[in-house]
Amino acid sequence: MQQKQVNAVVITQAHEVSCQPHKVVWEADQVLVKVERGGICGSDIHYFLHGRAGMSVLKAPMVLGHELIGRVEQAPAESGLHAGQLVAINPSQPCRRCTFCLEGQPNLCRAMRFMGSAQFFPHVNGGFAEYVAVPPEQCVPYDPQADARVMAFAEPLAVCIHAIRQAGDLVGKKVLVTGAGPIGCLVIAAALAAGAAHITATDLSERCRALALEMGAHAVADPRDEALTAEWTENGGVFDASFEASGAPAAIAALVAYTRPGGTLIQLGMGAPEINYPVGSLLVKELALKGSFRFNGEFETAVRWLESARINPLPLLSAEMPMQEAAEALVLAADKGRAAKVQLTF
Amino acid sequence: MQQKQVNAVVITQAHEVSCQPHKVVWEADQVLVKVERGGICGSDIHYFLHGRAGMSVLKAPMVLGHELIGRVEQAPAESGLHAGQLVAINPSQPCRRCTFCLEGQPNLCRAMRFMGSAQFFPHVNGGFAEYVAVPPEQCVPYDPQADARVMAFAEPLAVCIHAIRQAGDLVGKKVLVTGAGPIGCLVIAAALAAGAAHITATDLSERCRALALEMGAHAVADPRDEALTAEWTENGGVFDASFEASGAPAAIAALVAYTRPGGTLIQLGMGAPEINYPVGSLLVKELALKGSFRFNGEFETAVRWLESARINPLPLLSAEMPMQEAAEALVLAADKGRAAKVQLTF
Amino acid sequence: MQQKQVNAVVITQAHEVSCQPHKVVWEADQVLVKVERGGICGSDIHYFLHGRAGMSVLKAPMVLGHELIGRVEQAPAESGLHAGQLVAINPSQPCRRCTFCLEGQPNLCRAMRFMGSAQFFPHVNGGFAEYVAVPPEQCVPYDPQADARVMAFAEPLAVCIHAIRQAGDLVGKKVLVTGAGPIGCLVIAAALAAGAAHITATDLSERCRALALEMGAHAVADPRDEALTAEWTENGGVFDASFEASGAPAAIAALVAYTRPGGTLIQLGMGAPEINYPVGSLLVKELALKGSFRFNGEFETAVRWLESARINPLPLLSAEMPMQEAAEALVLAADKGRAAKVQLTF
Amino acid sequence: MQQKQVNAVVITQAHEVSCQPHKVVWEADQVLVKVERGGICGSDIHYFLHGRAGMSVLKAPMVLGHELIGRVEQAPAESGLHAGQLVAINPSQPCRRCTFCLEGQPNLCRAMRFMGSAQFFPHVNGGFAEYVAVPPEQCVPYDPQADARVMAFAEPLAVCIHAIRQAGDLVGKKVLVTGAGPIGCLVIAAALAAGAAHITATDLSERCRALALEMGAHAVADPRDEALTAEWTENGGVFDASFEASGAPAAIAALVAYTRPGGTLIQLGMGAPEINYPVGSLLVKELALKGSFRFNGEFETAVRWLESARINPLPLLSAEMPMQEAAEALVLAADKGRAAKVQLTF
Repeated sequence: MQQKQVNAVVITQAHEVSCQPHKVVWEADQVLVKVERGGICGSDIHYFLHGRAGMSVLKAPMVLGHELIGRVEQAPAESGLHAGQLVAINPSQPCRRCTFCLEGQPNLCRAMRFMGSAQFFPHVNGGFAEYVAVPPEQCVPYDPQADARVMAFAEPLAVCIHAIRQAGDLVGKKVLVTGAGPIGCLVIAAALAAGAAHITATDLSERCRALALEMGAHAVADPRDEALTAEWTENGGVFDASFEASGAPAAIAALVAYTRPGGTLIQLGMGAPEINYPVGSLLVKELALKGSFRFNGEFETAVRWLESARINPLPLLSAEMPMQEAAEALVLAADKGRAAKVQLTF
Repeated sequence: MQQKQVNAVVITQAHEVSCQPHKVVWEADQVLVKVERGGICGSDIHYFLHGRAGMSVLKAPMVLGHELIGRVEQAPAESGLHAGQLVAINPSQPCRRCTFCLEGQPNLCRAMRFMGSAQFFPHVNGGFAEYVAVPPEQCVPYDPQADARVMAFAEPLAVCIHAIRQAGDLVGKKVLVTGAGPIGCLVIAAALAAGAAHITATDLSERCRALALEMGAHAVADPRDEALTAEWTENGGVFDASFEASGAPAAIAALVAYTRPGGTLIQLGMGAPEINYPVGSLLVKELALKGSFRFNGEFETAVRWLESARINPLPLLSAEMPMQEAAEALVLAADKGRAAKVQLTF
Repeated sequence: MQQKQVNAVVITQAHEVSCQPHKVVWEADQVLVKVERGGICGSDIHYFLHGRAGMSVLKAPMVLGHELIGRVEQAPAESGLHAGQLVAINPSQPCRRCTFCLEGQPNLCRAMRFMGSAQFFPHVNGGFAEYVAVPPEQCVPYDPQADARVMAFAEPLAVCIHAIRQAGDLVGKKVLVTGAGPIGCLVIAAALAAGAAHITATDLSERCRALALEMGAHAVADPRDEALTAEWTENGGVFDASFEASGAPAAIAALVAYTRPGGTLIQLGMGAPEINYPVGSLLVKELALKGSFRFNGEFETAVRWLESARINPLPLLSAEMPMQEAAEALVLAADKGRAAKVQLTF
Repeated sequence: MQQKQVNAVVITQAHEVSCQPHKVVWEADQVLVKVERGGICGSDIHYFLHGRAGMSVLKAPMVLGHELIGRVEQAPAESGLHAGQLVAINPSQPCRRCTFCLEGQPNLCRAMRFMGSAQFFPHVNGGFAEYVAVPPEQCVPYDPQADARVMAFAEPLAVCIHAIRQAGDLVGKKVLVTGAGPIGCLVIAAALAAGAAHITATDLSERCRALALEMGAHAVADPRDEALTAEWTENGGVFDASFEASGAPAAIAALVAYTRPGGTLIQLGMGAPEINYPVGSLLVKELALKGSFRFNGEFETAVRWLESARINPLPLLSAEMPMQEAAEALVLAADKGRAAKVQLTF
């Protein structure tokens, strides 16, 4: 076992985040990665604002961060990795032994160790740090020509590619995306890259709607515009597949009306655990409502799509800040009126 | 055009049902069928009790009934049918021209004319009558050796076969069915006939639970038995596929907890149009909630399964009464404590 | 019924094609389209060279052509079309009544009338003519800003989008395409547009391999390069999905070795009706070999993708010639060493 | 490590099989099972007749047998198994680490150790022995009320359940099975248990056709009866799903003609590695030809279906013989005119 003293972005409780010394420890079969850049995710913001993210409550100091890229510092010979290589870091560490892992759904593994998550205790540290140690399977090398700012979107893009795959074949389909934050916007880009014919996006914020258009939406709307949304209910609904990325109860319920009979609803937006839901309409329209949670092999697809410029996420990048300003970066990232994605550099 | 004066079971408003004269009119390309037997369905009961079934409100007198078998009286030569032939009558008449009809989902046809339904005005008369006229496509001949009481279950069984097909491959699966009325019990039988490995059923009524066992359930439970249902939430849920046939909001929500991550929930039970729904759990467990509405080609499968005794529905048959006692039959059928399926004879 | 004398490209027997007078006849419910441009397809070439295309043997003079765009000259009011509108013409006219048509597979309709086909007698005339009359359903309006040369690729692109949909979800997949003529190259473009991660193409011709790269292939190979193809058999095969667009027996058989266990093989290339096939390897690798024939709703998707520049087919356009030079155009199109797609103008 | 001297059925080369002493060795984490009964499979017969089974050539003495049931003699505490328990033995031992294992397809694992197989060297011994040692995962306990003769069909039934699952949903489908040996007959039973509406079987042997009817086929035919098979090509083919269990090249090719456009062909029968195949017809009919190889979770489904009498395989049991008569048993089992399944007792 080896260890190294590094600086890391540690949260101790809600609103208490600082850059402080942290000890990284690793085994001979692990890879030590010098972290270069990391995106701030919604769950980082939730821990910062509320000391919890969904059911995961912070009980001890934890290093934040799970949208990471870096450069291999040291790797086991048999890993196929070598020092100096640029890698995107997959934050998922499933058990690889349970039924879910053995059926191609490690994202449902109940023993999943996910970086920067307080789900279990002791918490699993994240990677907002100068160095991080991970098993080789979590390192996906990428083309050194690629832009680091682009590649740091691999993890959230993986979430969105997983979501579009939950919807099945999108080729030629008419798609609705509700909520045009970073996730909603990457769903737009991913649906387009998977062959959707036409994509409509909604958001309460004009700034987010403008971003949606930049990311490839063919049309945008304010969900409060009833003249417009009334058209979406014609013939029982007009969209083949709808993606809910806002978490807003009103949006979740409204998709049932806007989606065509036999269509598919994908829920990605985390929000209220329970909502008032029109299950009667879902029944007579034979809709399918599916949850989409994290990702599996889509992490590698995200890396491939980003390095080959199939998707350009840069319109979503609002700011880059050094790790020493992590607290300020979290405040900025939490302000939807000013920022989409904020990245830290290390 | 030809016509014939017959007796029919007509509803004029809630609680007003009588056997009265009714004129049957038919064209040369239609089949005239002498109705022999018809089962009373939940929607017949709803019209009787409330003057409406879901969104369909009774605005004029209507002949009830859509679970029908009979004998061909007269058929067009080119139909392949002939006088004297026994047929199960498919009550669905889709438009055969819309997108849904052309994509193999006529059950979603928005111009569907369904027998005994007040959805459109003028209403579409049902078939609780001495004679009924239908297009040849709605007549499915069956083996004259088969028991008429059995064959009159073709329509509700078709609903249940459609539901199990919505769940995909059930071979070897662990299944839960909530609600053990006629529909829930036929879902049990259909899931078994489609290869499910183990089926658990729940109902508040002991009588219904006993019926569920007779229809093939391997285990039954009172859903209020918390010691038992707690076991169903182990490892994130234990059932691969769950069918909701009660329409009870509590049951609908509970299936999310009882079904394994990645599993499927099929909603058949009509009830409250909106319910409080745990959409957050559905998301992290990546469940798929699908509606199941009526049926398509499954009507013919139901006829084949019944005539070959693949499924025996007779434990569900509580009473047979002549059409003259239709009102009494409806009162009986509405009393879940006394009856499952009640059939009328003509 | 109305009629009009026009000039058309008529084939009378193998090697006998000329531009000659032809009478167009239409009913009030049909659309009269002034044809503007048409691509020459492999089946046009087969009729020209051999007097037959597969099982369809020319028995009487026939107008060739089924890759057509044009401008509406006259349309029934209720069609939603209007004079002056630019449309791509779908050459498929299925019966809309058979089982296949009612299950969303009109391409399998056994009564399909396909433009420019000698399958039935009398033959169905094609559209290499100044005017053509078709039902409104066969007209797909497109953005007048779009390039006519691009839009005339709608029909062959539809064939290729159908093929990639036969393969299921291609997101993140590793794909092989054998045969890089117009169809193989459009499969490459379509697979890329549907999210494939990496595409390899093979062709005996260097010119075709260069086109494959222009159309989006990440790598190309000469199938006779055994050092390279040996790598494709590692670990039981390396491609997730393979598309056979050459029709060459050796290519068809080789895909079984190059495709990973559990992978999918799509056969589009028409060639020898029977070939020596390694069915034993297919079994132990659990491969799925699927045919792909023509298209369904993919025609509209092709129009949408082309008008929005999702795919640029122009590298495939080798020549444009006036209808008067149809015979010369067919000679050129038949020469794979000189031409990919040749278009006629009217 | 522990060991025990037992008697086992060992093959040394083609036609040389004897019951001889054999040393069973096991680790503390393995289960020692006293074998009670084992069925003779086609691959056992191939080793006996030819010294090879497909590509696997016998290079050293090997214990035969992989269709086994027995009683737990000794089990690790944490396995959940206990001495005296009756178990069916799953002969598959996949690596549980490769891509195939992690995607729910361990049957495609290239490092699969399968009992009684000469695929690798040293060979993997089978279980025709008084005792056998296996990991706990390979032991599936069954109801002690069940008939041992029935339960010894678990492995071949698993092969057949896997095959029907490769075909997708069979509910209401019209099915053809070619070849009515033990595998073909179990496919018939499995297809019926999975909801197929009508099953036709073919075999050259009248005895096998009679068995097919006993196992649930609705109709049987001699494949040489051209008057009958001509009917199967009407409308482009009449069967929705066809299973090839004979391995005969003529049968494999003929299924393309007998199966309806858009239908599915499942190949289970091992035979000639290459055959003359009508790939042109497969294309225009858009058939899907899929291989089916061994099984995965279907082994447990087979145990459940057998112990609950969902399927009765006993019509297939031709003889039971003691292990001392293994050579005679193999001779009998190889004679299709006299025997279907032959079981050994230990």
